[in-house]
Amino acid sequence: MQLAERMAHRAIGSTYPNPPVGAIIVKDKTIIARGWTQRNGSPHAEVHAINQVRDKKALEGASIYTTLEPCSHVGKNPPCVDKIIKYKFAKVFISEIDKNTLVKGKSIKKLRKRKIKVIVKNFGNQTKNINKIFFNSLTNNLPHVTLKIASTADGKIATKLKKSKWITNSVSRQHGHMLRAQNDCMLVGNGTILEDNPSLDCRLRGLESLSPDLFILDSSLKIPNNYKIFTKFSRNVFVFYSDGKKLSKLNKKNIKYIKVSKKGSELNIKEILNKISKLGYMRILVEGGSHLSGSLIKNNYVNEIQWFRASKIIGKGGVDAVSDMGISNMKSTKNFVLLKSKNYANDILNVYGKD
Amino acid sequence: MQLAERMAHRAIGSTYPNPPVGAIIVKDKTIIARGWTQRNGSPHAEVHAINQVRDKKALEGASIYTTLEPCSHVGKNPPCVDKIIKYKFAKVFISEIDKNTLVKGKSIKKLRKRKIKVIVKNFGNQTKNINKIFFNSLTNNLPHVTLKIASTADGKIATKLKKSKWITNSVSRQHGHMLRAQNDCMLVGNGTILEDNPSLDCRLRGLESLSPDLFILDSSLKIPNNYKIFTKFSRNVFVFYSDGKKLSKLNKKNIKYIKVSKKGSELNIKEILNKISKLGYMRILVEGGSHLSGSLIKNNYVNEIQWFRASKIIGKGGVDAVSDMGISNMKSTKNFVLLKSKNYANDILNVYGKD
Repeated sequence: MQLAERMAHRAIGSTYPNPPVGAIIVKDKTIIARGWTQRNGSPHAEVHAINQVRDKKALEGASIYTTLEPCSHVGKNPPCVDKIIKYKFAKVFISEIDKNTLVKGKSIKKLRKRKIKVIVKNFGNQTKNINKIFFNSLTNNLPHVTLKIASTADGKIATKLKKSKWITNSVSRQHGHMLRAQNDCMLVGNGTILEDNPSLDCRLRGLESLSPDLFILDSSLKIPNNYKIFTKFSRNVFVFYSDGKKLSKLNKKNIKYIKVSKKGSELNIKEILNKISKLGYMRILVEGGSHLSGSLIKNNYVNEIQWFRASKIIGKGGVDAVSDMGISNMKSTKNFVLLKSKNYANDILNVYGKD
Repeated sequence: MQLAERMAHRAIGSTYPNPPVGAIIVKDKTIIARGWTQRNGSPHAEVHAINQVRDKKALEGASIYTTLEPCSHVGKNPPCVDKIIKYKFAKVFISEIDKNTLVKGKSIKKLRKRKIKVIVKNFGNQTKNINKIFFNSLTNNLPHVTLKIASTADGKIATKLKKSKWITNSVSRQHGHMLRAQNDCMLVGNGTILEDNPSLDCRLRGLESLSPDLFILDSSLKIPNNYKIFTKFSRNVFVFYSDGKKLSKLNKKNIKYIKVSKKGSELNIKEILNKISKLGYMRILVEGGSHLSGSLIKNNYVNEIQWFRASKIIGKGGVDAVSDMGISNMKSTKNFVLLKSKNYANDILNVYGKD
């Protein structure tokens, strides 16, 4: 089951709109196939594993281990549970029951009716974390928010003239691109885009196709239509705005405009996260700027921070990583848990989780 | 010799005004004594080692290893070299020749004249770093400056209302006290003192007597005479000022006032460091505030930063760890080398060295 968990890890960031799942098939104490949720969630892990076995007769009497209850409903794919029944598996080990109301124990019932033994037990120690993100998107309509910050040792993301090329070194930046591949989508404020006209893609060789779909906050549609994010790729780009008469909207299949309400002077961040979640995106990578980071931290929507810190100092006057959150006493600081630290040459990465 | 080096390490922070030195005596392939520079630099390491041996006849024909050339001049102590001759050592191993013009090879000459074999070779790998600090104070009149910063993850040392109790956790703060014990003296701006009326001593049990002497920047003598730093201890306190008619100076033996020139609106930091060095202090710990840190970093006087970072966020508006250094492009950031990282519960310590 730990191996199945590792398989699920492989799938993270490429399974939208399905959750990443891993599966292992065992016959006569030998692993005969491994599977994980494929690109765009199809095929599912169980079927991916089954497809590895050429002689389907070998599956008779085999056991399948999976990190999430197999599906029993028809979506893009026919239900996995039917294939398990068809090929006469003897046992099904499941880490967790699916909380999706379309499944939720139905598959287990169906399997047991056909005299297939079902054992529900959480074997791995990380499966729960992987599935929690899926369940949270189902029940609370909130995506898993990872904030990426690249700052100096003193927490500045740019000089007073907004220069930021480059704060962190190339090793850190490569890892930053890996984060892009591991998330379903990205969210950025328009400041970053207006400043640098970036591509915001994943430029790691071989992983280019994993460049995440893009969500942009552009309250009054200030980003020019000829900017790279609109012209360079065919991935989905969603623009959140509240009033935008200034520019004509682009008429492109992959670019969508979503109107949201305002909360004070800023776009309503809760509404934005809910909309992203409802579109099926579970893992979102936020790459600044300062205001977006501040707004997410202030409202406790950040699940994880990947903080890259260069061994440089800019000092006061530089652009702060996190905008003013109105914190005036030590009791109201926003607290996190330091999960991991890693050196990237002369930079250091600190990974923080929810307190 | 590596053991001698370890002995030298023991002495760091308690040998003012002498450099920390370690010594080992070997006879018939057996270590018969170890020594290191004692409190207030007396006795020196070699004599401290010699004193361990009760039957001085045992020293005849022995070898002594020392991390720095033994002294040949009379200071607070009679010259070590005479004792080495008196007890008829056969060999003297020396890591480095003393650059102090009062010694500088003279001891080696004297020993060789008496047919004692002298071998000069750097055995340990850290001795050079220890001695460099001593030599630098001799030749450049500059102390080794260690900056201690305790900040949030985003580099703030206090909230906008200047609240800072406590940013870092108790484990970090204990280590902070250890740093005080390991330095000859401390330097702080008056802001820190006016804000908190701190004791600035070493409160680790057993090390209280190692509380470093204190240097304070108080340009116009604003710190009230009844503050703890003036009343609580008998250690030396030096106050740097440029004009101070407002308060009457204290007439206490351990408190001294030193007038320095101004550079722009601030006290001349180079003059201050030179004066500290001339007083014999080699290792200085700087504990903020923001302006002092900025001034030292800007002028490249910082040799080491011990940066404690809590997993909290305050955001813009909080007090920056380092004041404005006028840096507007990425080429002029102040760069350091990340030497070490260590977790203190949920805080992390990053140690930076000169680039």
